Amino acid sequence: MSIYPAKQHLAATAAQLGADAGVILVFGGSTLVHPDSDTEYEFHQDSNFFYLSGVNEPGFAAAYDVASRTAILFARHVSADEAVWIGEQPSLRELCATYGFDAAHPVAEISAVISGLRPAAVYTLPESAERVAALGSGSWVLPEAALLRAAVHEARVFKDDAEIAIMRRANQISSAAHEALMRSARAGDAEAALRGRFVGLTLARGAQYEAYGSIVAGGRSAAVLHYTRNGGALADGDVVLVDAGATCGGYASDITRTWPVGARFGAEARAIYGVVLDMQRAVLAACAPGRLWEDMHALACAEAARGLLRLGLLRGAADSIAANHVVGFFMPHGIGHLIGIDTHDVGGYPPGTPRIDAPGLRYLRARREMRARMAFTVEPGLYFVDAVLAQARATPAVAQHIDFDVVARYRGVGGVRIEDNIVITESGHENLTTCPKEIEAIEALRAEAYASEATTVA
Amino acid sequence: MSIYPAKQHLAATAAQLGADAGVILVFGGSTLVHPDSDTEYEFHQDSNFFYLSGVNEPGFAAAYDVASRTAILFARHVSADEAVWIGEQPSLRELCATYGFDAAHPVAEISAVISGLRPAAVYTLPESAERVAALGSGSWVLPEAALLRAAVHEARVFKDDAEIAIMRRANQISSAAHEALMRSARAGDAEAALRGRFVGLTLARGAQYEAYGSIVAGGRSAAVLHYTRNGGALADGDVVLVDAGATCGGYASDITRTWPVGARFGAEARAIYGVVLDMQRAVLAACAPGRLWEDMHALACAEAARGLLRLGLLRGAADSIAANHVVGFFMPHGIGHLIGIDTHDVGGYPPGTPRIDAPGLRYLRARREMRARMAFTVEPGLYFVDAVLAQARATPAVAQHIDFDVVARYRGVGGVRIEDNIVITESGHENLTTCPKEIEAIEALRAEAYASEATTVA
Repeated sequence: MSIYPAKQHLAATAAQLGADAGVILVFGGSTLVHPDSDTEYEFHQDSNFFYLSGVNEPGFAAAYDVASRTAILFARHVSADEAVWIGEQPSLRELCATYGFDAAHPVAEISAVISGLRPAAVYTLPESAERVAALGSGSWVLPEAALLRAAVHEARVFKDDAEIAIMRRANQISSAAHEALMRSARAGDAEAALRGRFVGLTLARGAQYEAYGSIVAGGRSAAVLHYTRNGGALADGDVVLVDAGATCGGYASDITRTWPVGARFGAEARAIYGVVLDMQRAVLAACAPGRLWEDMHALACAEAARGLLRLGLLRGAADSIAANHVVGFFMPHGIGHLIGIDTHDVGGYPPGTPRIDAPGLRYLRARREMRARMAFTVEPGLYFVDAVLAQARATPAVAQHIDFDVVARYRGVGGVRIEDNIVITESGHENLTTCPKEIEAIEALRAEAYASEATTVA
Repeated sequence: MSIYPAKQHLAATAAQLGADAGVILVFGGSTLVHPDSDTEYEFHQDSNFFYLSGVNEPGFAAAYDVASRTAILFARHVSADEAVWIGEQPSLRELCATYGFDAAHPVAEISAVISGLRPAAVYTLPESAERVAALGSGSWVLPEAALLRAAVHEARVFKDDAEIAIMRRANQISSAAHEALMRSARAGDAEAALRGRFVGLTLARGAQYEAYGSIVAGGRSAAVLHYTRNGGALADGDVVLVDAGATCGGYASDITRTWPVGARFGAEARAIYGVVLDMQRAVLAACAPGRLWEDMHALACAEAARGLLRLGLLRGAADSIAANHVVGFFMPHGIGHLIGIDTHDVGGYPPGTPRIDAPGLRYLRARREMRARMAFTVEPGLYFVDAVLAQARATPAVAQHIDFDVVARYRGVGGVRIEDNIVITESGHENLTTCPKEIEAIEALRAEAYASEATTVA
C-alpha cells in the first residue's frame, strides 16, 4: 500500500497559511466513551488531523516545521499492561516509515521537541488550541487558531492523485454494494435488511464504516429527505430510494440510487425518474473548471422545469417558474456538495460568501467556482413532500405554476434522487460512481432479483 | 410490539432511592457531531435514560412524580422546516401510548410542569445535573446526583421479563450470525470480511448496532485480548476467535466462539478448546442465587489448572497453583461481567466493594452475590500472550509450575475463548446464547463451509 501523502498535505497547508517559518502542531482525536458507561464510540479520526497525518488511531499528534519542511509524528504511549489488551505497538522508526514522517517521538515529548525548534509561532486548530497553549506554557507565540483552520480547509478542497485514487476505490466498493441490492432485493424485504446488506458488503470489502446514516426509503418514505429510520418494508409498485456510502481509507462516498421494488418502473415513477436523470445529465455535462456551483443548481432546476412542464405537473412560462423558484418546492435541497474526508466536505463557502435565501438554494452546501481537483456530489432529486407542497399552494406566485391535480397522481412516487460523486478535471469531470443508473440497466438488475429463487437479501 | 416497561423502571428506581416523595427528572442524549464537521455520530441513547424512558431518539427528557406515580415524557420540538428532513413527529398523545407514559409535554415546558408539581426534591443524574439546576433556577431542592445514579444502577441489575425477552432475542440474532460465519468462512477470507458479514446479518435481522467493537482474531492475533483491528486473513491450521454481539432493542449481547479455520481442530487447539469448554461447564453448573461471582472465577481457574496439568503445561500441586494465581497468566481477564443495556453493565461493584489485586482477578468486572434476574457473561479463555508468559517466567513462585517447553508447543493456538450470556433464575440459570460450541457441532458446521463451492463470506 502506498503511503498516505500526509507530509504533502502539511506542506500544502503551510502554503495556504502563507507562512515561511513557525510550526504547525495539531492533535488527533481521542477515544470517546458513552455517558456513565465504558462502551466506546467506534473511533473516527478528526478529519483535519487525518488529512495532516494519515493516522487513524486515537492519542496521536503531528507537527510540521515550515522552514525546514520537517514532519514530526507524536505517538501515544502504550503501557505493557495495555499491550496485553490492544497488542504491541510499532516502534517510532516503524511509525515514521508507515506514515511518511521525518521523525517520531512519544507524545510526552511534544513540549520539549517543539520548544527545541525555537518556533517563531505555533499554529494550531481550534480543537487543539487549549492543549497547545498549555504545552507552550506562555513561551510560544500562538496565532489565532482560525488561521490554520482556514488554511487546512482550503488545502483539503483540492484532492491530489492519492486522494482521488482512494475516493475512486470508496466509490467502487459502495457502487458494487448498491448494485448487489438492486440485483437481490424483493418486495417484502425490510428496509433495515437492505441497509444491513449494504453495510455488510462494504465492510467485508475493506470499508471502515458508513460515511453517514444510510437511507433506505420505500414509497412515500422517500419524501422524508433524511429518512434514516429504515423501519418499513419494500412494497411492490413502489420505488425505493437508497442513499448509502461507505468511508474507505478515510474518504467518504455518497451515492443514491432509486429503483422499482418490482421488476419494472411504474408509469409515474418512470416519468419522474427520467426527469431526474435529465437533470443529472445536464449538470454533469456542464461541470468543468471556471463554472459556478450555484449555476449547476440553476441548470438542474431549468431541466426539471422542462420535464415537469412536459408531464403537466407545471404550467406557465419557464422564466416565471425560474424567478419564483417553483422547482425548489420539488427539490428542497441543493444540487450537491463538496466531498472528501467528510461527506459534506469543508470549503463550500469561502470566508465572506453568503447563502442565497431561496427555496432549495437555501440548503446549497457550496458556492464557488469549480476548479480542477475539487470533488462534488451531483444529486438532483424530485420529491412530493406534503408539507412543502402545502407551502407552494399557499404562495400564489408559485401555485399558479403547479397543477395540483396532476401532482396528486404522482404523489405515490414519494421521491427520486440520483447521486454520483465526481472530481473536476482540467477539461471537465471524472465520474467516480460506477453503478448503473439508466432505466434499462436498472430493470435488467431488478429482473435478476426475481429470476432466481435462491437469492435473498440476508 | 409490547411497550417497553419504562414506567416500571421509574418505579423500581424510586424504590431503590427509598424516596416517597419528590420528582425524578433526567435528560436523554443529544446528537453528537464530529469535530469541525457536520457528520453525526450514529445516535446511541444514554443507557440510564433508555432504561427510564425506552426512548431511542435525541432531545427527550423524562420525569416521575414519586408520590402520585405519574410518568411524564418531554418531547423534543421539531420545526416544520426540520420535519421536511426527518419526517413528521408523532403527537404528544401518540408518544404517551408508544412509551407507556401518563403525560407528555414539549421539552420547553419542563420547568413549568415540574414546578407545578411543587416537588419536595428533584432527583437527577450527574449528566443532567447542570441543566436541571438551571431549570429550577434556585427554587428546587436538588439532592446529590450520585444518589439517583446508584439507585438506577441497582435497579438495572435486576432484569424483568420484558428485558429478558429482549436479551433472548439479541442473543438469538447474534448467535445465528456466529453460526452463519462458522458455516461459511474459509481459509484466505479477510478477518474484516467476517466482521462485515456479522454486522450485515445482525443489522438485516433488526439489530441496532454492534454492542462493541467486534474481534475477529485468527491464529496468534487471538493472544491480543481486544484485537479489533481485524486486519489479517484466516490461515488454514489456525483457529479463529470471533467475539461479536449485536445490540437489539437497546440491549447488548456479547458472544465469543473459537473454531478451526480448516474443517477440523488441530491436536493442540482441540486440547486447549476442551479445557476451556470444561471451564465453562464448571462455571455454568455452579451459577445460581446465593453463589459469589468471584467464586465462579476461582472455579474456572481450578478447572483450567486440572486441564493444563493433564496436558503437561502445568506441574506441581493444585493448591500451590491456585495460591500463586498461575492460571491468571493464561487467562489474564475475569470470568465474566454483568450485561444488559451496556455490554459491561452497571452494578458489578456495589459501593464499598474493592477490587482483588491478583493476576486475572484484577480485571474481574463484578464482585457480588448472584441473585435471580441478574444477567452475566460466562467467558473462560486460555491465551498464550508472550509478554504475560515472560512475566510468569520472571516470577519464580509461578514459573515453578509451568513447563515452558510444553507451552511453546501450544503457542500457535494464540487464544481460545467461549462466551455465553446467561440470566440467573430461582433455581440456576437460563443460557440465552444458542449457537453451537461442542467440538462435534462446530466441526460439522466447518465441514459445510468446505462442502459447497458456492458459499462465500462476502
